[in-house]
Amino acid sequence: MNDYPLPYYAVIFTSKLSAQTEGYEEMAQKMIELVKKQDGFLGIEAARSSIGITVSYWKSLDGIQAWRENFEHQKAIKWGKKKWYDAYTIRICKVIRQ
Amino acid sequence: MNDYPLPYYAVIFTSKLSAQTEGYEEMAQKMIELVKKQDGFLGIEAARSSIGITVSYWKSLDGIQAWRENFEHQKAIKWGKKKWYDAYTIRICKVIRQ
Repeated sequence: MNDYPLPYYAVIFTSKLSAQTEGYEEMAQKMIELVKKQDGFLGIEAARSSIGITVSYWKSLDGIQAWRENFEHQKAIKWGKKKWYDAYTIRICKVIRQ
Repeated sequence: MNDYPLPYYAVIFTSKLSAQTEGYEEMAQKMIELVKKQDGFLGIEAARSSIGITVSYWKSLDGIQAWRENFEHQKAIKWGKKKWYDAYTIRICKVIRQ
């Protein structure tokens, strides 16, 4: 619930978990620890009810791109697609007002 | 978890509920019904764990502004500030990629 200097970027990740959640929580925690170390990372907020919404905040699009290409993150994405998620959407946004 | 034609706008509302949640659920449901009738409204996604994240999607900034000025919504905002929320943040974003 922090404010950051404008303009900055938000990645909205919404997901629906499948019935196969084995290993999911552990990987989610690991990704949160890892993303915090990324250049240009500002913060992250997450909540889950019937769907999950995770929003990460970034100084630049370059930071988002580097995180996307991160090797450990790539592995997590692959598992997510294969096993944990029934559906998901990723939106990259420019925050214009807060 | 729908896609919409780019570009469009997202309003990210994050909140921490207070201990006084009387009337909150009813009002939240009412606002969801109401927002769906707004011009330019595309969709809404919500989840709550220790914090709540609600993201609404809009065709234009005008639609967001009109919703903000809606009388019933204004009443809900007033109650929210006074009673239901310990903290909240609203971010208005332009979705640039999905």
